[in-house]
Amino acid sequence: MNTRGFHIAVVGATGAVGQQMLRTLEERDFPIRQLTLLSSARSAGKTLLYKGEEFTVQEAKPESFEGVDIALFSAGGSISKQLAPEAVKRGAIVVDNTSAYRMDEGVPLVVPEVNKEDLKKHNGIIANPNCSTIQMVAALEPIRQSYGLKKVIVSTYQAVSGAGAQAINEMYGQTESILEGKEVTPEILPVGSDKKHYQIAFNAIPQIDKFQDNGFTFEEMKMINETKKIMHMPELSVAATCVRLPIETGHSESVYFEVETQGLSAAEIKNKLKEAPGIVLEDNPDEQVYPMPAHCVGKKEVFVGRVRKDLDEDTGFHMWVVSDNLLKGAAWNSVQIAETLIEMELVKEK
Amino acid sequence: MNTRGFHIAVVGATGAVGQQMLRTLEERDFPIRQLTLLSSARSAGKTLLYKGEEFTVQEAKPESFEGVDIALFSAGGSISKQLAPEAVKRGAIVVDNTSAYRMDEGVPLVVPEVNKEDLKKHNGIIANPNCSTIQMVAALEPIRQSYGLKKVIVSTYQAVSGAGAQAINEMYGQTESILEGKEVTPEILPVGSDKKHYQIAFNAIPQIDKFQDNGFTFEEMKMINETKKIMHMPELSVAATCVRLPIETGHSESVYFEVETQGLSAAEIKNKLKEAPGIVLEDNPDEQVYPMPAHCVGKKEVFVGRVRKDLDEDTGFHMWVVSDNLLKGAAWNSVQIAETLIEMELVKEK
Repeated sequence: MNTRGFHIAVVGATGAVGQQMLRTLEERDFPIRQLTLLSSARSAGKTLLYKGEEFTVQEAKPESFEGVDIALFSAGGSISKQLAPEAVKRGAIVVDNTSAYRMDEGVPLVVPEVNKEDLKKHNGIIANPNCSTIQMVAALEPIRQSYGLKKVIVSTYQAVSGAGAQAINEMYGQTESILEGKEVTPEILPVGSDKKHYQIAFNAIPQIDKFQDNGFTFEEMKMINETKKIMHMPELSVAATCVRLPIETGHSESVYFEVETQGLSAAEIKNKLKEAPGIVLEDNPDEQVYPMPAHCVGKKEVFVGRVRKDLDEDTGFHMWVVSDNLLKGAAWNSVQIAETLIEMELVKEK
Repeated sequence: MNTRGFHIAVVGATGAVGQQMLRTLEERDFPIRQLTLLSSARSAGKTLLYKGEEFTVQEAKPESFEGVDIALFSAGGSISKQLAPEAVKRGAIVVDNTSAYRMDEGVPLVVPEVNKEDLKKHNGIIANPNCSTIQMVAALEPIRQSYGLKKVIVSTYQAVSGAGAQAINEMYGQTESILEGKEVTPEILPVGSDKKHYQIAFNAIPQIDKFQDNGFTFEEMKMINETKKIMHMPELSVAATCVRLPIETGHSESVYFEVETQGLSAAEIKNKLKEAPGIVLEDNPDEQVYPMPAHCVGKKEVFVGRVRKDLDEDTGFHMWVVSDNLLKGAAWNSVQIAETLIEMELVKEK
């Protein structure tokens, strides 16, 4: 710990994203004066390492947030609903990685490369968007800035770690059983709390989160609504199909988009992506260079490739966007919001 | 064998698709008077069972086609280029499952549910479309018939069996190695004859077949060009992104399409699919019913679900299309073409 810096709380510290938050804070050498690790009663008492020092995880309670400057929440929507207001009441700024507040007016929904100015309008809570939304808007924003944006149609290829540590275990367990010729009994995916469960090993499940009345899943509606909010484009046409695949980490997206500007080439789109913050262009068909989930794990950037112009629609383009869903899709974007709050002097050391 | 019926040759009988052709001929109780199993010199001499009877596979040569009525080719494009004309010269009708002749004028490219009338125009060779094209056009055709079709954007989720038996072995081998914590050395996928190879286990590879100058892969161009040819719609706007996944069998497709008719509901689209030949509608979000590759294996139909109206574009719809790529995508469509030739009296018993 430093003698100066901030008092940071991580809520859901023992979870898949919480662990990544700790690693990211460490790697970024985040200015931490005091670190409070919180979880449900069930996980309280466990110890976790931060820069070689042991920390005991405590049960998250309203009083846990006394003196906290920034609280990073990633312990599920109901915990955020219950405790984020308590943290704010005690003077903390909350960066919430759940969907609890994302669409609330007065809660900025932020991808720093896209809309960090929105942080100025916060009322204590800042929402971290859905993992699949973050990587897509990060790739679309540099294109929109130069050429405008009219329409987006995305099909996702999402990893199981987005559904938590239990889903990862389920995938590997099923894979082993199938290799041994045994039957599998799915228990978690596609959605732990939904009625039916399906095999994920060697399969593709076109359901992430529960279905809404319009036939889209909640995950698909998150991508649609969050994209419009983050980009300040309520009129943008956005559609999504979200699919879970037997991949541990790394979400991929096949994105079709139409810009306002006519007569552009794929090379012009690639040039904008090459210069964009947080984006790595991996696009060389001659050398079979394109992004893949197996190559993105542990990296903070959003990788874009397979950029090509539609063969029929002059303003239409296709691209393939890949990112580590636990980092840019969750832990890193949250920590990046915290860093941006400091840079913009929206949080001050006490 | 029957005393009446046809003399059928299967070229590439020992391959993944060839084996499925034999099983499909058996299951359909195809009227076979004589069966000739052919392969490369390497596989010649192997024995295969058909209805309990042993057949020795012979090396495919021009003379092998003497007396053959229908030759089902699935041994790679170069074999088809070399031997299909020899078979035709000897009076056989060739149903070719490779890409060798698909785009040739004078060669019908046929999905029986869509364009069986094209069979009448054959000149000896009939081409079986690419696996990912077949299931998509089978699902689009009943919609087009009633409501017209303007635009198609597809992202695929393709199984490794589309790349042959070696690719299946590679996927399982890599999966085992990764579960045991060992390094993997990819050797086949994404494209055996291309420069670089990538891990398929727990990964997604956005390359199927080699890249063309326009940035699309050959697989993507097949989907684009074959769809226009089969549907007789050179003006149709079609775009594809093709992705290989760690799934043994069963291709899935996220398809966005725009019809000509305005004001339609998703229910009207579903009704057309429900009545369509060769299509099974599996679409009930309330009960989490939708098609998945793990459930389609061994079935001849094309399964469609997740049908929903676009939230912005009145004529736009989304659907999820799944089929066994070795059956409707290859063996069954070929055998179905042969059955249709008989039904339409385009081939007669000698």
